[in-house]
Amino acid sequence: MLLNVERASRLMDESGLDGLVATTLPNIYYLSGLWSSSLALFPLDAQVYAVAPRERLAEPVLVVPTGDLDTVPDCFPGVRAVNYGCFYREVAEGVDLSAGEARLRDLAIDREPRTDAIEALSAALEQAALGNKTIGLDERSVDPALASKLQRRFPSMSIRKASSIFKQIRMVKTKDEIDRLRAAVRVTEEAIRRTMLIAEEGTTELQMAKEFERALVDQGAELIFKLLRIGRHTAFGQARPTDTPLKKGDRIWLDVGCKYEGYSSDIMRTFAFGDVGERARRYYEAILKGQERGLQTAMPGVKAKEVYHATVEQVREAGIPHFRRHNVGHGMGIHLYDPPMLAPGDETVLEEGMVLNIEPPYYEIGTGALGVEDTFLVTKDGSELLTSISRKLEVLQ
Amino acid sequence: MLLNVERASRLMDESGLDGLVATTLPNIYYLSGLWSSSLALFPLDAQVYAVAPRERLAEPVLVVPTGDLDTVPDCFPGVRAVNYGCFYREVAEGVDLSAGEARLRDLAIDREPRTDAIEALSAALEQAALGNKTIGLDERSVDPALASKLQRRFPSMSIRKASSIFKQIRMVKTKDEIDRLRAAVRVTEEAIRRTMLIAEEGTTELQMAKEFERALVDQGAELIFKLLRIGRHTAFGQARPTDTPLKKGDRIWLDVGCKYEGYSSDIMRTFAFGDVGERARRYYEAILKGQERGLQTAMPGVKAKEVYHATVEQVREAGIPHFRRHNVGHGMGIHLYDPPMLAPGDETVLEEGMVLNIEPPYYEIGTGALGVEDTFLVTKDGSELLTSISRKLEVLQ
Repeated sequence: MLLNVERASRLMDESGLDGLVATTLPNIYYLSGLWSSSLALFPLDAQVYAVAPRERLAEPVLVVPTGDLDTVPDCFPGVRAVNYGCFYREVAEGVDLSAGEARLRDLAIDREPRTDAIEALSAALEQAALGNKTIGLDERSVDPALASKLQRRFPSMSIRKASSIFKQIRMVKTKDEIDRLRAAVRVTEEAIRRTMLIAEEGTTELQMAKEFERALVDQGAELIFKLLRIGRHTAFGQARPTDTPLKKGDRIWLDVGCKYEGYSSDIMRTFAFGDVGERARRYYEAILKGQERGLQTAMPGVKAKEVYHATVEQVREAGIPHFRRHNVGHGMGIHLYDPPMLAPGDETVLEEGMVLNIEPPYYEIGTGALGVEDTFLVTKDGSELLTSISRKLEVLQ
Repeated sequence: MLLNVERASRLMDESGLDGLVATTLPNIYYLSGLWSSSLALFPLDAQVYAVAPRERLAEPVLVVPTGDLDTVPDCFPGVRAVNYGCFYREVAEGVDLSAGEARLRDLAIDREPRTDAIEALSAALEQAALGNKTIGLDERSVDPALASKLQRRFPSMSIRKASSIFKQIRMVKTKDEIDRLRAAVRVTEEAIRRTMLIAEEGTTELQMAKEFERALVDQGAELIFKLLRIGRHTAFGQARPTDTPLKKGDRIWLDVGCKYEGYSSDIMRTFAFGDVGERARRYYEAILKGQERGLQTAMPGVKAKEVYHATVEQVREAGIPHFRRHNVGHGMGIHLYDPPMLAPGDETVLEEGMVLNIEPPYYEIGTGALGVEDTFLVTKDGSELLTSISRKLEVLQ
């Protein structure tokens, strides 16, 4: 289970909520373990929900299209499902069914599907005994009329927006979540290592980007993004990798992320292919010092914006006096950008168990980018890096 | 350019629209060639738009976060951009800038970004001279209040919902789109071929799924989904591949799709690893005959639902009398499921240039799934398969 039941219960009590309804892929996964293929493939159309009553948070009721029932047996124990819509499966005659097959038959065959998502969600709310209670509904559903439809159906139900409470709950990670974030980091670092092994004179951006992705595939991780540029192209971080060949004196910049067991990684590194010059080395040293200062500042009780200011000021002092940046990091979790943001104005007070990234990159048109980005855990009295590969400007040749 | 200007202009005239505003990733890509990294990474939060006036459909104005400006130079020629929000880039002193660098400087440095997405979208609508005209706005934006915000800003503008007109326009493909769909099919078929090369006694589902993905990476394609199961697991198509080893008599079922140059593929195949038995062969023959009948039925002037009924009836006649299926195919394009649907009640009349999939799969708990799925183009007087690998139940050993 990923959910921090104690924290969720407390925050729900403070908001007077008897139940939560998740409507987005990350929140549904968090409650149930369902990585909804419908929501992943049809984000503009699919309706999938998870209903979790305050008193039985570990036993959410899923609302899924009938076609998705084959993914329900892989969810967390205790998860139930209500399905809707048409998808046909038959059952073989005269065959002894395995436990999994019998479960799918029970889910998919021996019940009539509900006609649509609202019917099914209503049934789930009734199963969870929330029909006349106060629920928190993540308002970012694909159906903007969802709340009013439910209100008509359950006139005595009180419906509140809950996108922000989901963010609040998910902001502090459980041990299971931290383990998964560690694993996502480890897998990504291994892929970066493998990518740098093929960097030699003439290797192209495209070849390196593909090698990175192959290394993820080999480890069973899923690519989220692979930004990899060389030389002056690094100022165009998000543009597509090209056939440009690596040459002596180039910097290699990568900003990459994957999903592993549902959790995200996001790591940035800069490598020197030969001598990248004194100015680049000096600037890199400055951003690294800024990152280090941010890591030293981050601890329980400190505000997110304080980490931001400490980092930016240190980069300026250490060698880039004109350094500017809109944020220097963000929370990590199921989603690539969980709150809080290490940014001006973010008053969130850091707590033990938060996992964040810290990144003070520098982009300069005409020379390129320099960057370093790492994931850290807020511990009882400070911070602990989850990354382990060198953060220095490593020279490859 | 992907857009069918003639068709778009005609449909806009019929609806009295002077301009279109795209708010979703596929529609924005279709108009501008921008595969928005913000929308891909932050589908619940990012605001990216494309504004296309009726008289200059090939010169849309993009609305993007300032951080995404580095992806604008890769868009179609003629695309302009208005940006909003904070992202800092510096310009090197004393360095001669390349054409691309100068373009990014002009886009990103020499203009003040707008404060937010609504400010930027308003500026784009003014640039496109649509401030007092009738616009079609795709209503599936992340901001459900978008239309009312624009109405306050432009009191004399008439705003209509346009999600369905975008679907209508995109339903008939241009030559460029058909070429891209062909390429996506070719890449996927090559990956299926490579995957089957490693199928031998003891090979696991996971090994084959990874081999498929590696083959996509090598070809520069992006995975959308890789469902690969063996034996009786094939009844759980969407469940995760496991370590189960392949053994003689197993069927191998895969349903896989990728994105290549922005366009999607979706192919299903069943292979026999040794002798899968007379019943499986007979049933497979029936669904293949159904698919063939569907392909023969599909031609300009025929309704989508007629292809559905012809396919299902043929499968029943040819050997699975109890065959049931909610649809037997769907349009293909930038999105995996473009309209129309080959389904009961879909009255869409097929036209030359539509590209669809046809799939009559059969799922049976206790024995497994059988399926075949192919992409075809509606031609002047019939249909043409874009796939070229065998559709038979090929025996691997």
